[in-house]
Parts: sequence; C-alpha cells; structure tokens
Amino acid sequence: MTLDSISRRRLLGTAGAAGAAGLVAGGASAVAADRATRDDAGTTALTSIGASAVDFGGRARAHGTPQAGILDPHQVHGHLVAFDLAPRADRKAAAALLRRWTQAARALVEGRPADREDTGSALDAGPASLTVTMGFGRTFFGKVGLTKQLPQALAPLPDFSSDVLDKARSDGDLWLQIGANDGLVAFNALRVLQRVAGDTARVRWQMTGFNRTPGATDKPRTTRNLMGQIDGTNNPKPEEDDFDARVFVPKGGDASSPAWMAGGSYAVVRRIRMLLDTWDHLSLEQQERVIGRRKSDGAPLSGGTETTPVDLEKFTKDGSIAIRGDAHVRVAAPESNQGAAMLRRPYSYHDGFRDDGQPDAGLLFIAWQADPMRGFVPVQRKLDRGDGLSRFLRHEASGLFAVPAAAKPDEYVGQPLLEG
Amino acid sequence: MTLDSISRRRLLGTAGAAGAAGLVAGGASAVAADRATRDDAGTTALTSIGASAVDFGGRARAHGTPQAGILDPHQVHGHLVAFDLAPRADRKAAAALLRRWTQAARALVEGRPADREDTGSALDAGPASLTVTMGFGRTFFGKVGLTKQLPQALAPLPDFSSDVLDKARSDGDLWLQIGANDGLVAFNALRVLQRVAGDTARVRWQMTGFNRTPGATDKPRTTRNLMGQIDGTNNPKPEEDDFDARVFVPKGGDASSPAWMAGGSYAVVRRIRMLLDTWDHLSLEQQERVIGRRKSDGAPLSGGTETTPVDLEKFTKDGSIAIRGDAHVRVAAPESNQGAAMLRRPYSYHDGFRDDGQPDAGLLFIAWQADPMRGFVPVQRKLDRGDGLSRFLRHEASGLFAVPAAAKPDEYVGQPLLEG
Repeated sequence: MTLDSISRRRLLGTAGAAGAAGLVAGGASAVAADRATRDDAGTTALTSIGASAVDFGGRARAHGTPQAGILDPHQVHGHLVAFDLAPRADRKAAAALLRRWTQAARALVEGRPADREDTGSALDAGPASLTVTMGFGRTFFGKVGLTKQLPQALAPLPDFSSDVLDKARSDGDLWLQIGANDGLVAFNALRVLQRVAGDTARVRWQMTGFNRTPGATDKPRTTRNLMGQIDGTNNPKPEEDDFDARVFVPKGGDASSPAWMAGGSYAVVRRIRMLLDTWDHLSLEQQERVIGRRKSDGAPLSGGTETTPVDLEKFTKDGSIAIRGDAHVRVAAPESNQGAAMLRRPYSYHDGFRDDGQPDAGLLFIAWQADPMRGFVPVQRKLDRGDGLSRFLRHEASGLFAVPAAAKPDEYVGQPLLEG
Repeated sequence: MTLDSISRRRLLGTAGAAGAAGLVAGGASAVAADRATRDDAGTTALTSIGASAVDFGGRARAHGTPQAGILDPHQVHGHLVAFDLAPRADRKAAAALLRRWTQAARALVEGRPADREDTGSALDAGPASLTVTMGFGRTFFGKVGLTKQLPQALAPLPDFSSDVLDKARSDGDLWLQIGANDGLVAFNALRVLQRVAGDTARVRWQMTGFNRTPGATDKPRTTRNLMGQIDGTNNPKPEEDDFDARVFVPKGGDASSPAWMAGGSYAVVRRIRMLLDTWDHLSLEQQERVIGRRKSDGAPLSGGTETTPVDLEKFTKDGSIAIRGDAHVRVAAPESNQGAAMLRRPYSYHDGFRDDGQPDAGLLFIAWQADPMRGFVPVQRKLDRGDGLSRFLRHEASGLFAVPAAAKPDEYVGQPLLEG
C-alpha cells in the first residue's frame, strides 16, 4: 500500500514557526506554541501540539548524546513494548532489525510515513512530539553471542517484598518506549514498529499509559499521579551539576558499563498498581502524612512551596517531626540513600476494572539512571522496608533495559554494540 | 478528605478570554484558543485545552436541550461505563443516585472538585471540556417499577450475523459517557461518579477510548480511525434542516418515545474490533475499494474532495462502477436506507494484544438518533448483509440507552422520568 503524504506535508508547511523554521525543532523550543486559529469552516490550524517534533538524533550532553524520550517533556500517550527475539535470530538479524527500527523511527518522528505500508492512521497529524526509544534486556546478549558486551549494570534486579511480578509482563530481549501527544500517532508508531520487526522478534508484552495534556495545566514539569499527588518534584534537574553523572554512562564506559553504553542510560520499568479504593479511604491529612507533602500544591510538610527542599529535621510546633519516619519523601530522598537518585518519567495507566472490582490502574514507572545500583536498587530497597506508601502499591511487572546513546547520522541505534 | 481548590480556581481565573469571560463558555466558542506562553521558569499558561468548559445544562435546539457530549467536539479521552442497580434499589434510590450524579457532574464540568472526597487527580487542570452524559438501559425500567415509561425505541436490538457479543460487556441499567481533553480529568470523573454511585449501583462494564488531540491536525470535524480511514465525513450536520428530527425526540414525544424523552436521543454503543493485521495486508487500492473513499484525503472514489457528496451512479472511464456494490459508503449511505441516518461520535480503543497476537483494538462506536429503528438498525441490517468492510470487523459488545434531555437548573438528569 502506498500513501499520499501530501496533505500531511502541507500541514507541516503551514504550521508556523515550529514547522516552517525547521521540521525538527527539538526539545523545549518546539513547545513554544503557535496561536491556534479557527476559520469560518470550523477548522483549526495545526498548533504546536501537532507540529512539534523531537530530534531522533538527540541533543548532546556532557557524556554523549542520549536518545530522545529521556529528557524530553512527557507526552500524552505512551506505549511500552517488549520483544523477544525469534529462536533463530542471530546477531546479524538483530542488527538488521535495529537498522529497520531506526529507519522507521527517523521517518515517524518527523511526521512522515515510515514506509509504503504505513497504515495511515497518523495521516493529517504532525509529529506530535513523537519519540521512539530503544533498549536491550539482559537476555538479548546471550541469544546473539554478545555476552562479553553484557553490562554489569544489567544484573537482575533483586527481589523486593512488595513484588507480585507477572513474569509474562516482565523483562524481554528488546524494549521500545513510544510517546506522542496524539493517540493515533502513538498507535501508528506502535503498529509500524511491530510490523517492521517481522519474523525477527515478537511482542512479549505491551502496556499503554497517559499523561496530562499540554495546556491542561500551567505546571508542565510535574504531573499528578492517579493518587492525586504531584509527582516528580524531587527529580534531578538537567541543569544540575551532578545530573549527567547520575543519569548517563560516562565517555568510555565505567566499571558497570562497557564503552558501547557511553552516553546511554538504564531504564527501570515497573508496573505499579495503586490500591486506589484503599487510598481514597484515608483522610486528606492521612494521605499527606504518608507522602510527606501537601496534596493541593505539593509543598513538603516541612514548609514552603512545591520546590522548597524537604527539611527532614524539621519539627512542628507541637514537637512532632514534620515529615514522618516512614513518609515517602523521606525514605526516597537522596539524603536517605547516600545520594542515590534517578530521573523518573512515568505514565499513568488504567486498564479497566479487575475481577475483584478494583481499578486496574496505577503508574508505569520509568526511571533513568547511569547505574541501577546507584539509582533504583538502593532506593527501592529502602522503600521496600520503610515506606508507608508501599501498603498502597503492588509492583506487578518489572524490566531493566540498557538504552544506548542516540544513533549517529547514517548509523542505527545499538550499532556500536552490534558491530563494535 | 478536603481539597484546596484555590490553585485550580486561580488557573481558571488567569485563563484568558475563555476563562475570564465566563467559566462555562460552551461549545465551539470555547474552542477558540488562547495563546500558550512559556516563561523563563518553563511553565506554560493554561491554554484553551485546559480552560474550555462545556455547559452541563446543554444548548437549546429545536426539540429541547440535549445533554452535553452529543453535539460537542469529541474529546481526547473517553470512558464508557455501564452500571447495574443493586437488587434492593428502588425508584427512590435511583432518583437519589441521578441527583447525586448530576450534582457531581455539574461541579466536575466546571473544573471544581465534586465533593470533599474528590481524589484530586484533576487538580491543577481546568475543565478540559469534560462532559458527562447519562442514559437508561431497557433493564432499568422494570427494576424501578417504571415499565409504563419504557420507550418502544428501547426494544432490544436485533441479532446481526457479524455479532460475537460478550453479554458481560453489553447492556446495563444505567450508562455514563465521560469525555475530556485531559486524561487525569477524565479518570477522576470516572472515579468520582463510581464512588458517588455508592451502594445503589455497581459497575457492569467499563471501556476506555481516545481521539485525536486538538491541534494535532487541522481537520477537527473528522478523525481517522485505527484503519487509517477518515471517519465521520457523512455524519448529519447540526445545521441541516432534518438534523434534529433525525437525532432528537420531538417535543411531547412520539410513537416510539414517551414525553419524558422529548429533546433526548438514543445512544447505540458497539465495541467493534478491527482485524487490523488482516486489513493491513490489503493494498491501498483494495482498502479504498472496500470503503469507497480515498485514504489520503477521504474523497469519494466517485470524485471530488472529502466533502463532495458521494455519487453512487458514477462510472469510471473504464466502464466500471466507481463505488462498488459492497463498498461501505454505498451500503451505509442514507440513499441506500430510506434516509436512515445517525450521528456517529466514536472513540478508538486499544487494549493491548489478544492471546492470538492480534491487537485488541478498534472503535467504540457511539451513534445518536431519535429512534434506533430509523437510524442504527436499518443501516446495520444492510451493512450486516452487504458491506465489504464487515469481513474486517467484529462487533464484540452492544448497548442501547435512552439519553433524556439535559437537566434544567435545580433539576437532575432523568427527573421527568423518575418523578413524572
């Protein structure tokens, strides 16, 4: 099937600054909005939501150029999908798959059809900030004869007492994170990338999530989760001095990572169901004590506003500690974990109701770090033992993926691994 | 739990024309966009996406004032949820439930917390064009002793040969359609309305869908479905002379509808799975012949542009009929069905993959009409026999609901039925 992409290109050409000045505007500048106009026919011009494009080639940082989808603003729609290699797929077949995925993703993130068989559900829309991020699971390396390149950082995550993991929805040889501000663009990318996998790899699991729509709130940096709590306030900030060391593998690699992972990051993926009915039975004050922050504005119970640093030593007037010993912000704080921190960039999910009448809903937790042993693992160990919030959470699936740096022009994602 | 809604109200107050000129702007005028601005702190002002509100009281038409969520632009996120009354719930209990739902919905659509127990996940956002639409299923009437008020129009839909209906996900005593342009606003409304149901009714089934994000395309009137085809072109238009007669019950009712349904409409809900892998194996030309329209721009194969009327008599230069005998647009056309037409306002859905590896995805088809016997039923009978598209579709769930006119101020939805 062939697709006429003229109307789509025309749209991009009339999209104002974000479209005309350069299709791939990249990052925050692409979010600067064009004025939406409505003519007599009731049509609305493509606004920044549709016209914004994220550069698949990434943006350079101190350690290299990470893939898109890690530092970019979270999108409205997200798909996480893990693949397992077919039994006969070897290193050459895997390399060809990554080459095909890279080629398709390059077209899709620019708002072009991926190939002649692109199903067309993304037609009429701009790129809508589509990102496609690719990673490798631990099981990939043995299957393609690359165990020498297996990062120590991909050691299996330890068991945690609050885990009730579904193995069928955990792990996987390969992992894609797809995000876009339009649902049809995101779905089309998922379909295309699955089709392009051909006989080389098949879907192991797939999950769909959502985030706040741009423009629905004036707080784009943080979002609320389904418990109603502001999420992400304490995230490391890209402008902080130690940000790159925390999130990205240094040039040349390190003790946990071979050189092919330089500039890359590790994604810890957890499907965390929230026991929302139980949670909602708590009073507002009880909920706030469990978290350690005010629900209305996210300010820590130690005082100030959302962005005020948490004061773990603060006592209230009545002599009690402001932030309880088992409050989530205390147990998760870098100060409580020898500085361990990770960049969280989650989606919420809601897959209807379970047989027990409870909502099957919660957080597709995605955390980025240079080494899970200095990020997710120590923090989760601590949370697992002492976090008052864990009573309301169930970790139902888990994955850990090595996400290399962005592909250089004319290369494909993972080429330094597969042809190194 | 109590919630501080100050920050939310502040947002609405700073939302520019759509917020300041009146919180409830209603309809198309609310879609006129404010300019999104980004300050040095990286925050974006609430744009029309968040600030737009739809009037729960509806907008008057020739036959009365229909509920919101029928004529309003489709939203990004949708939840359909059916409830069954508890065994002991009588007419009085049902009336109290509708009163509570109406009260909660009135607050939510204005961007206010529904009550002191509102979980808060919608905090920080504006109304985001939230609509809550309420309907009654056939089984409702007998349970509350109102069989005399049962509309003839609620007669069970006939069986169709392409039906593979899951009874557990079909029908229901009560039905809510929730739509919003922000996922947290939509989810919060679902949670609140379920909680407010209390012991009177419990969820029978729930489905979640999505539509294109406003601003992702310059074609807001139509959308693409997951087959990639433009959908809704041939919908009746509110400005057409016969629109109200087709979609809404006349004043005083008619042979199919008691007086309490005056100004109301009937919603036919079908969960239609698309056999996307099979569909995508067709060539573009084959797909277009099945539909009768070009995929790129929706123009009928009889010529013109998307909005050109379909010419069912047109022959091509080679002497073959332009629009095939079993083409979807021919079989569905009002000309082929004694003028039968309905207003379709669907959501796409995607619930991951099925055990057979196929995507569990398709259309949450929602069609509005004054009488299903002059809308969905004759058209679907014809489609069921002669539509080339039906090979690629499976109707997996079905519902039919009587959706009365909007509640008058100080009344609740359905009050003329429950207290008539």
